[in-house]
Amino acid sequence: MNAIVFEQAGTPADALKITEVTLPEPREGEVRVKMLASPINPADLLFINGMYRIKPQFPQVAGLEGVGIIDKTQDNSHYSKNTLVAFRHKGLWAEYAIIPEDKLIPLPDNFPVEKGSQFSLNPITAYALLEDAALRPGDWLLVNAGNSAVSKIIIQLASLRKIKTIVITRNEKEAEGLTSVGATRVLTSQSGNVAEKVLEITERNGVACVLDAVGDDLLSELLTVMASFGKVISYGLLGKGNVTYHNSTVIFKNLTIAGFGIDAWLTKKGDDVQRIYDELITTIANPEFQMPVAAIFPLTDIYEAFKFLKNNANTGKVLISMNSR
Amino acid sequence: MNAIVFEQAGTPADALKITEVTLPEPREGEVRVKMLASPINPADLLFINGMYRIKPQFPQVAGLEGVGIIDKTQDNSHYSKNTLVAFRHKGLWAEYAIIPEDKLIPLPDNFPVEKGSQFSLNPITAYALLEDAALRPGDWLLVNAGNSAVSKIIIQLASLRKIKTIVITRNEKEAEGLTSVGATRVLTSQSGNVAEKVLEITERNGVACVLDAVGDDLLSELLTVMASFGKVISYGLLGKGNVTYHNSTVIFKNLTIAGFGIDAWLTKKGDDVQRIYDELITTIANPEFQMPVAAIFPLTDIYEAFKFLKNNANTGKVLISMNSR
Repeated sequence: MNAIVFEQAGTPADALKITEVTLPEPREGEVRVKMLASPINPADLLFINGMYRIKPQFPQVAGLEGVGIIDKTQDNSHYSKNTLVAFRHKGLWAEYAIIPEDKLIPLPDNFPVEKGSQFSLNPITAYALLEDAALRPGDWLLVNAGNSAVSKIIIQLASLRKIKTIVITRNEKEAEGLTSVGATRVLTSQSGNVAEKVLEITERNGVACVLDAVGDDLLSELLTVMASFGKVISYGLLGKGNVTYHNSTVIFKNLTIAGFGIDAWLTKKGDDVQRIYDELITTIANPEFQMPVAAIFPLTDIYEAFKFLKNNANTGKVLISMNSR
Repeated sequence: MNAIVFEQAGTPADALKITEVTLPEPREGEVRVKMLASPINPADLLFINGMYRIKPQFPQVAGLEGVGIIDKTQDNSHYSKNTLVAFRHKGLWAEYAIIPEDKLIPLPDNFPVEKGSQFSLNPITAYALLEDAALRPGDWLLVNAGNSAVSKIIIQLASLRKIKTIVITRNEKEAEGLTSVGATRVLTSQSGNVAEKVLEITERNGVACVLDAVGDDLLSELLTVMASFGKVISYGLLGKGNVTYHNSTVIFKNLTIAGFGIDAWLTKKGDDVQRIYDELITTIANPEFQMPVAAIFPLTDIYEAFKFLKNNANTGKVLISMNSR
């Protein structure tokens, strides 16, 4: 079978090779999956560069998230052949992949493959961030890095809960797409003076929560326009610089700033996670729920996929397609 | 009766006058208290300077915390004459004061007056900070501004709960006193390299919680030596500058930074507060529990009291004494 393999860390163009490898066999507690599709996520680039928290073991098949159909199980498996499953695991850019059973998220047979390929990371992250935010209908939520895939899911889930969103993005072109997924208000960071605009929109009350993927000066500014007992949940590192604030800012308004990682959150939730996945499957299967895809490339067109991504990063996910159902 | 009055904001020496005023009468929902003692707290200086969040109404009697004996009640009062009570309220540096009933904290008759004068603010603040810290026996707690009155109570309450403390203070002289109230380890900020010392003491695990009254560069440094899922609770403003950190610092370790104010905390706890006061009364009445007093001055020696405070701020509270029991 074909796989996208790298033997040393580097750029995708330099490091990745389309390679013929042996069809793998599942061991105890594993299944073999016929891969259908995988997104190219920011984490994939870091993984190929050797900069991700999960390190490659060479020769390493690339790809960290995907969807497929169970193709082969052990006799005592909890899973049945032909089940549609989503998962996060390393080594997915191949026609078949071996996945530990505890990483499988079963999906209904008719779940759209494009959404399934992006199911195991961003929807649960968005859900978890909103749950930790603990907002009520009518509260103001601020989302920065608004055009990211996870932000678009946050905006839609918030809208379903009647939470009002102020979404910060880079430019007017991105802003249009965000209004169409349900953002209450969109601000562009290019136009400046974000803090004053947030105060105007919230009638000078400030926002109850900031879901922050940036940090840096933007978060320093946003800290000044929080409502009393407001909460910042930081989950991303897009900014290069430091956050600065004065103790009076957090003390006088009883603010909280919390760092968030999805794996710690999933561990904490334990058995409750299955119920959350069920709820998300129903929500996301709705045709009105948007998880935009910019383009789909066959596995063997991996270089073209990365070239396209470089020039079209902001219009939706770029997917790799391995097999049809 | 005598009272310490100011007619305009200023320094204590300029603004305060010893004044003969009429004995006040309690109205519905109030009692008259024969004042026994009051501490001079940092908040008192701000109040007299017009810089405190509670503003003076001239002519204003100074003094914001104290202890006394109920001297006169309304017929339908919930309180009895001769009850020993602690309270926070404005206008206490006088031989008698009017206190709203909802501000009274009844104390046992034999509760030491010196501790009673400091009972209504610092002990409940220390208790609340420790409760929000949610530590287990054996966890490491870091306390900065270690020589403050509230820090000394935090250290003792933590020690009773078998929580290990690293206490940061300015110099070796202060350090001795902190070991004697039960600090596990004391670091002096003058000697530098606090972060590395904290890592050594905690065998490179970091501290589970920082109770922070400083902010500024000290907190920026302490953020780098937190354990995973560590919590910073900021409740003071002794530092002049900003806290800076990078988003990766809070995200990779799932840290939380929270601003704290005692009045919001008391409101949140509601009826549970009475049980906490009862527990604190028992703990603090123990002769081994230390709330150091540096000197006691009669009400009419107010100028001497402030002069003494200026030169001896670090050895314990300076108290004003109005009446004997």
